[in-house]
Amino acid sequence: MPHHDLPTLLLVLAGILAATKLLGEAARRIGQPAVLGELLAGVLLGPSLLGVLDPAEPVIAGLGELGVIVLLFEIGLHTDLASILRVGGAAMTVAMVGVALPFGLGLLVLPLLGVTGLPAIVASAALTATSVGISARVLGDLGWLERAEGRIVLGAAVIDDVIGLIILSVVSGLVGGAALSFSGISLTTAIAVGFIVAAIALGRVVVPPLLRAARAIEMPGALGILGLAFAFALAALASVAGSATIIGAFAAGLVLYATPARHDMERATTAVGGVFVPIFFAHVGAAMDVRSLGQSQVLIVGGALVAVGIVGKFAAGFAPWWIRARKTLIGAAMVPRGEVGLIFAQMGLASGVLDAGLFSAVLLMVMATTFVAPPWLAALTRRDRLSPVPDREGGIDDLVAGPKSKG
Amino acid sequence: MPHHDLPTLLLVLAGILAATKLLGEAARRIGQPAVLGELLAGVLLGPSLLGVLDPAEPVIAGLGELGVIVLLFEIGLHTDLASILRVGGAAMTVAMVGVALPFGLGLLVLPLLGVTGLPAIVASAALTATSVGISARVLGDLGWLERAEGRIVLGAAVIDDVIGLIILSVVSGLVGGAALSFSGISLTTAIAVGFIVAAIALGRVVVPPLLRAARAIEMPGALGILGLAFAFALAALASVAGSATIIGAFAAGLVLYATPARHDMERATTAVGGVFVPIFFAHVGAAMDVRSLGQSQVLIVGGALVAVGIVGKFAAGFAPWWIRARKTLIGAAMVPRGEVGLIFAQMGLASGVLDAGLFSAVLLMVMATTFVAPPWLAALTRRDRLSPVPDREGGIDDLVAGPKSKG
Repeated sequence: MPHHDLPTLLLVLAGILAATKLLGEAARRIGQPAVLGELLAGVLLGPSLLGVLDPAEPVIAGLGELGVIVLLFEIGLHTDLASILRVGGAAMTVAMVGVALPFGLGLLVLPLLGVTGLPAIVASAALTATSVGISARVLGDLGWLERAEGRIVLGAAVIDDVIGLIILSVVSGLVGGAALSFSGISLTTAIAVGFIVAAIALGRVVVPPLLRAARAIEMPGALGILGLAFAFALAALASVAGSATIIGAFAAGLVLYATPARHDMERATTAVGGVFVPIFFAHVGAAMDVRSLGQSQVLIVGGALVAVGIVGKFAAGFAPWWIRARKTLIGAAMVPRGEVGLIFAQMGLASGVLDAGLFSAVLLMVMATTFVAPPWLAALTRRDRLSPVPDREGGIDDLVAGPKSKG
Repeated sequence: MPHHDLPTLLLVLAGILAATKLLGEAARRIGQPAVLGELLAGVLLGPSLLGVLDPAEPVIAGLGELGVIVLLFEIGLHTDLASILRVGGAAMTVAMVGVALPFGLGLLVLPLLGVTGLPAIVASAALTATSVGISARVLGDLGWLERAEGRIVLGAAVIDDVIGLIILSVVSGLVGGAALSFSGISLTTAIAVGFIVAAIALGRVVVPPLLRAARAIEMPGALGILGLAFAFALAALASVAGSATIIGAFAAGLVLYATPARHDMERATTAVGGVFVPIFFAHVGAAMDVRSLGQSQVLIVGGALVAVGIVGKFAAGFAPWWIRARKTLIGAAMVPRGEVGLIFAQMGLASGVLDAGLFSAVLLMVMATTFVAPPWLAALTRRDRLSPVPDREGGIDDLVAGPKSKG
């Protein structure tokens, strides 16, 4: 089928794949996680610098959307739910404080800079959700995903995404002129939490016989592709049920984690993710307009949002005072905002609540918090290597699951 | 980034991936190549039956376009150019006769059914190009790709695609009101042939140092992704140079075949192709409107095109009379039309040269020739297994390269 700009699309994809791999490797060589280079590749290729990557191009945008879904499925496939539940109290505390603190600080600080009313609410709401994708990828690159801190961060990021999505639907209602409704908020919450619980409960019953049937397919790689189809289907169902696609993809990974097919799924997902996931990160990077950094109002409001965003989430890392874990690491890992923050910014711009300047400031906050976390975490990890705190002692004993067998 | 119908897109993708794997396995179980099931999955999901797969959806269409490019790259990676050149005379003969015969027969038969002038030229031109993708996939599924017959078919299909694209650009000019120009035809030919030759010549010089640099990237899977980026870039360059994207992707595979990185590339491409390639086949299948098969004029004209299309290509298999190879197998493998035939049909419909009925007839020809080839080839191969003709004897000795080492 002819596509009027297929050659352009192909060149852009070739550029994204090559640039993310090259800058990802460059980042790795200077001791930073690869995701930093992949984001930078997006900024470089984006409309404000090279102008190669147009984030509005439907196929690139679609591949990026598939990328974050594949990423969350991958993360779910690596997530031992039992050990996250064991850190459930700590994760819930980090998530709640990490939503309330930045949101409250934003509503406090923004009026001092002349931003009030609905714009202040939308901009503050964009501060609430940690990017599961970026945090998990950075922690994974640094080898922290399977430790207590990693699981607390992952659990908290998933929970605050759910809270963020609830706030998003409430704020959408406000933007549309609706009044706050307690029953509306409760319903949105119940759906997101209920979806994951229902997926896992049903998955225990439905998935094993499906897997046995799928194993009869002898074509190489078929099992992994069917796993991906399952993730896409659950992502769609989550969205239709009134939650977010990434919640569904994550739930699909959680369900398959407990099955013997996990390693086949991991292999297929990693290979496919090698193409889709860098497109997602480059797509996020390309959303940053570096020229807006020249406007003083954007810099002041953006700087305030960055400060509030970093302080609020970092402080949240210390909220579960009773656990013995590296709280600096938890706090720093909670800092990067991503998908949900960008959705807030875009919804605000499209509805006219955010003007171009405030939109840029929110984007600046999303990007700066994302850029600051990887080197910060890498530095914390490096220092950590010099004086390691033992993983299994005293109060965190019950936070640490047994060693996982990796394929 | 929000996508107004992301859940729909995800459900459709899940449906395509699951249906192609299940029907592909079903086809395999009854002794047919998997591609037949994947095409049937597309027909089933397409607008005229279940209405799940809309071929016009931009992201699905884009994934399908990427699928055929990944497929041609994969085919190039498996193509030993030296052994294709050794069958060059035979392949060229099959290609030339396989273009001239169906084209001429079409122009002869269509006027008898009331189709004359430009519509007859466009419909006949759609008969000229064998689908490299489908033929190679079928031959690969049956294990024929590395034998003399497979290489002749592959070479002839590549050559007649080039010829088909030349005819396409000439016919586009006619549709646009231009006069036939010898210099225009020569230029189009020179570009397509020149691109492959230039890519291989330049590739010998440029690719080895690039590969040595790429090998320094230690991230797992990076080499395969960079290979894919190379294929996308060459596909775009081929299109910009005035040829077809699939010519560029195929050339990229040919260039990398001769390098030590081939096996890494094959692994990555096969994994990524496991997602993209079935989407291409399903997308082709979904283009068939089964309801149009109820109209007698569509059935009569379509039936005539099918007959002419099968007879013309099958006869072309016998054109290289001097070789000792299974000419029935060559002829049958040349029968399926695909990408280029569909492009003709779409161009004809969009420009108003083909009415809806003639468009359906051309589509019927593309689908029927595609559907008839796999079982036909499977039957020929099965019979062959009972009385195998030795591969290395007499005149075909020089057609058969040494056994290839497979990773």
